[in-house]
Amino acid sequence: MSEQDVLGSIEGLRSHIDDIDEQIVALLNKRQVLALAIRALKPQAQLGLFDPKREEQIYERIGACNEGPLYADDLRSIYAVILKVSKEMQG
Amino acid sequence: MSEQDVLGSIEGLRSHIDDIDEQIVALLNKRQVLALAIRALKPQAQLGLFDPKREEQIYERIGACNEGPLYADDLRSIYAVILKVSKEMQG
Repeated sequence: MSEQDVLGSIEGLRSHIDDIDEQIVALLNKRQVLALAIRALKPQAQLGLFDPKREEQIYERIGACNEGPLYADDLRSIYAVILKVSKEMQG
Repeated sequence: MSEQDVLGSIEGLRSHIDDIDEQIVALLNKRQVLALAIRALKPQAQLGLFDPKREEQIYERIGACNEGPLYADDLRSIYAVILKVSKEMQG
């Protein structure tokens, strides 16, 4: 492959990544809408706003459905921030 | 709604979040497969392994396609970790 062809392939792969990023952003926002809905219901269910058991369950689930190449620890690092920003918005 | 009904609603919303998390994990892994493919091509294109311009482009794109409720800064915090673990795996 010529250098130009390789650059073209890289462009194509990057544009595929851009599509995936759009999907990830949309899903993160959907996730946040649901998290805010749960947040609004919690007082009526006499539930505390922070539930460490639920958080642990989320980490277990993302580890269990992970098929790689990312490691479970990578996903845990990413989800630590997802859950942090989610909780911050829940006040 | 009785407390029991509210708990049922929360369960339903959580199960929807679980589905979204499975999709996010699958997309993060797809993204990493593509990032590794680009990584493998870079030496043939005489490209450096780290490209700060591409990184800035990613941040701009995720901000541009964001419809909320997450803030652009929230997405930036999440993507800082996504890009960090991605680069770590690219060696």
